[in-house]
Amino acid sequence: MLFLLDEKGHLYLVKGDKDLHTKYGIVRREDLKNAKPGDMLKSHLGVKFYLIEPRIIDFLKKCKRGPQAITLKDCALIAAYSGIKSGSKVVDAGTGSGILAMFLANIVYPEKLVTYEIREDFAMIARENFSRFGISNIEIKLKNIYDGIDEKNLDLITLDLPEPWRVIPHAKKALKIGGFLVSYSPSISQVKKFCDSLSGFVYETIECLTRQWNIETMRPYSRMLGHTGFITFARLLER
Amino acid sequence: MLFLLDEKGHLYLVKGDKDLHTKYGIVRREDLKNAKPGDMLKSHLGVKFYLIEPRIIDFLKKCKRGPQAITLKDCALIAAYSGIKSGSKVVDAGTGSGILAMFLANIVYPEKLVTYEIREDFAMIARENFSRFGISNIEIKLKNIYDGIDEKNLDLITLDLPEPWRVIPHAKKALKIGGFLVSYSPSISQVKKFCDSLSGFVYETIECLTRQWNIETMRPYSRMLGHTGFITFARLLER
Amino acid sequence: MLFLLDEKGHLYLVKGDKDLHTKYGIVRREDLKNAKPGDMLKSHLGVKFYLIEPRIIDFLKKCKRGPQAITLKDCALIAAYSGIKSGSKVVDAGTGSGILAMFLANIVYPEKLVTYEIREDFAMIARENFSRFGISNIEIKLKNIYDGIDEKNLDLITLDLPEPWRVIPHAKKALKIGGFLVSYSPSISQVKKFCDSLSGFVYETIECLTRQWNIETMRPYSRMLGHTGFITFARLLER
Amino acid sequence: MLFLLDEKGHLYLVKGDKDLHTKYGIVRREDLKNAKPGDMLKSHLGVKFYLIEPRIIDFLKKCKRGPQAITLKDCALIAAYSGIKSGSKVVDAGTGSGILAMFLANIVYPEKLVTYEIREDFAMIARENFSRFGISNIEIKLKNIYDGIDEKNLDLITLDLPEPWRVIPHAKKALKIGGFLVSYSPSISQVKKFCDSLSGFVYETIECLTRQWNIETMRPYSRMLGHTGFITFARLLER
Repeated sequence: MLFLLDEKGHLYLVKGDKDLHTKYGIVRREDLKNAKPGDMLKSHLGVKFYLIEPRIIDFLKKCKRGPQAITLKDCALIAAYSGIKSGSKVVDAGTGSGILAMFLANIVYPEKLVTYEIREDFAMIARENFSRFGISNIEIKLKNIYDGIDEKNLDLITLDLPEPWRVIPHAKKALKIGGFLVSYSPSISQVKKFCDSLSGFVYETIECLTRQWNIETMRPYSRMLGHTGFITFARLLER
Repeated sequence: MLFLLDEKGHLYLVKGDKDLHTKYGIVRREDLKNAKPGDMLKSHLGVKFYLIEPRIIDFLKKCKRGPQAITLKDCALIAAYSGIKSGSKVVDAGTGSGILAMFLANIVYPEKLVTYEIREDFAMIARENFSRFGISNIEIKLKNIYDGIDEKNLDLITLDLPEPWRVIPHAKKALKIGGFLVSYSPSISQVKKFCDSLSGFVYETIECLTRQWNIETMRPYSRMLGHTGFITFARLLER
Repeated sequence: MLFLLDEKGHLYLVKGDKDLHTKYGIVRREDLKNAKPGDMLKSHLGVKFYLIEPRIIDFLKKCKRGPQAITLKDCALIAAYSGIKSGSKVVDAGTGSGILAMFLANIVYPEKLVTYEIREDFAMIARENFSRFGISNIEIKLKNIYDGIDEKNLDLITLDLPEPWRVIPHAKKALKIGGFLVSYSPSISQVKKFCDSLSGFVYETIECLTRQWNIETMRPYSRMLGHTGFITFARLLER
Repeated sequence: MLFLLDEKGHLYLVKGDKDLHTKYGIVRREDLKNAKPGDMLKSHLGVKFYLIEPRIIDFLKKCKRGPQAITLKDCALIAAYSGIKSGSKVVDAGTGSGILAMFLANIVYPEKLVTYEIREDFAMIARENFSRFGISNIEIKLKNIYDGIDEKNLDLITLDLPEPWRVIPHAKKALKIGGFLVSYSPSISQVKKFCDSLSGFVYETIECLTRQWNIETMRPYSRMLGHTGFITFARLLER
């Protein structure tokens, strides 16, 4: 697998076994074959392509994702506000296309992250994403997290589910004291029902907006996501 | 060092060698002496206090910080959008009170992070913060990063400096191809000057707003930070 | 009544019958006595003060207001999105300190605006505000709008009330077809209940955030209101 | 001219001299011919259409507009923060498609608003918009406002121009003391240059974001304008 960036920052993912056709011209198979991160190749039009060591953000850009997949900014806050690090024990549900699982697994590595999903079709997409990018520290469980959590002594449980309140009793057994149950919900009604069901936790709910600027013209871009989801951070005090 | 959370989520940091006086009553030295994470203590008024294993977020709440210290949401985006993980090689400047350095060091652990600071008084505060919380994988260099970067093959360089453009030539030598130079600036004029000086990089500039909700009353809190800083992510393509 | 602006834009409201003491010095009664809009006076320290013809915005800055009084940005949207103008027929409830009533009356002038309030103490404050600024086209009714609306053929009804849904049946009789029932609520739960009770209307709910910039330093101010209220614009289609 | 709203709130503008074809069926010419505001018609599919007295907001929705035309929220703030009312004297430049001129003229009516435009093609579009909706209190001047302002004793001058700073000397002569010069600019660099050129004014610069909620699902819409323009309110203190 090769990751190339063109001069505009567009990302290309190729095996290197055939020519890469782009709007900036063709990058030849012969050139790709022996290329490695740090190298620069030129298309037949003379446009430059740069080989990079991929990072999690490059994987996330290139993986298969559903229309409602969680955004990078929300992944960022979930990881940061729960304070996880290499070695942290994390359970995630539902997997979906695996975006959040991949993001968090990248941080807790080499610790294994467990992600629960009941739909085999979603699990398949996620599994494909994980193996395609060589992410080995995720285990997918085809299991309904509403029925219970097998793991214990967890630092973080993340939920992207329609009825997150059904996980609360299980989370209380599975989390460390001081550990986080984080729920991501698009609707504030779901948040309300989740928070009203919490006991033994302290919590806060936030939403995050990011806005990109065009520095050449010195103005923000008018295109912006006005909403993705509300994130509730519930910290376990008492079982 | 003991970290306690009360029922409202307020955090207390104590050595445990004397009584802890709070507005919810006194937690006795005798009780604190043998307490460990996971335990629950009661104040003389019967209010509960929970001992937790501290996380980076607890350290950040309790460390000494200047008035303009970077916020957690901005730390979150810097780490996430640059895709760092355990083992990533990071250089930070200027250290200030060390907030961003601590946050990033927590992720790249056990890899050592290097942070540049020219002011001895700031370095002292940062050093105190690091040692107080047992963070051992940060090295403070009393050196002006405008004069050069000793490290090589870096994944990420973070700048919280008045003249970030002066670091660009050094960053080009120090970063891996595909690595990130991230600059955090309160003023959009600084951003402009930084971006206009970039060559060999692709970049984007974002700002992030978070808003907290009161779920009991189902309304956002009116208190909100309207601005912290603009973050520019510049990715090295070519030296 | 005299309205003065100092060089920083601070507003002073005086009768002119005594000296005006400010942190920029004293403006003398002798000078104030014969001053009129367009004039400039100097304090004894030589700082300039400018007499202006007051506008509604100056009244709003200087009137007595409760802690939860509606903000100018929300007044602005209510007037603009409902499309009122001189001569429009408007009913408002509850009056509170009369901010919104004053703002709207300024636009519909010389048409009279009617505002409903059940609390005599609030009505008193509002009445004082209106008379102090010479606003004569507002009638305060000490009456509960939940019990009915006397007026007919209205262009706009504005509600800043805890149970706005109780006004809907009355509003349907009082509004023109195509007229607006606008409800301002701090809590999204109130909005939900209001919208669920609407029939015969089309509606939309918006929230508005404004952010002020410091152009000298080229950065937004960090102080910002993260929330005031949600505004629902319901337009009557059918009785 | 007839204005109809369907059950979803979509607006139709017709002369009534032929059948109206919609995705909810055909509204017959015979029915339209004698219809008046307040009436309800049914399409041949039985869907209801409501005749309304149009308001400025209905005109703005149906008028011809360029891609960068000012939004209603920004019009709202300009009118509200400058405190204009029926009778206020306003000059606007450049006209563009006439959106802001129409909005402000609706408020100052019956006073005449003057709008400056140098491009005959824009003036033509604006003139068409004004006459189509029967707005008679706007005068278009085919003149460069950079060369001077004929009017005097103004309450408000609004600028939507690439070089607003060139109007400042003229505005100082044309405005009342206490009057407003308001500049709307997409780029913060233009704002900077404008503000740096101001003298004899106090000013503030704001930006405004509105977000719409879907109350059925209790979540904000993800589609949102992340930026339109910065608005600077400069109030004249001294000539």
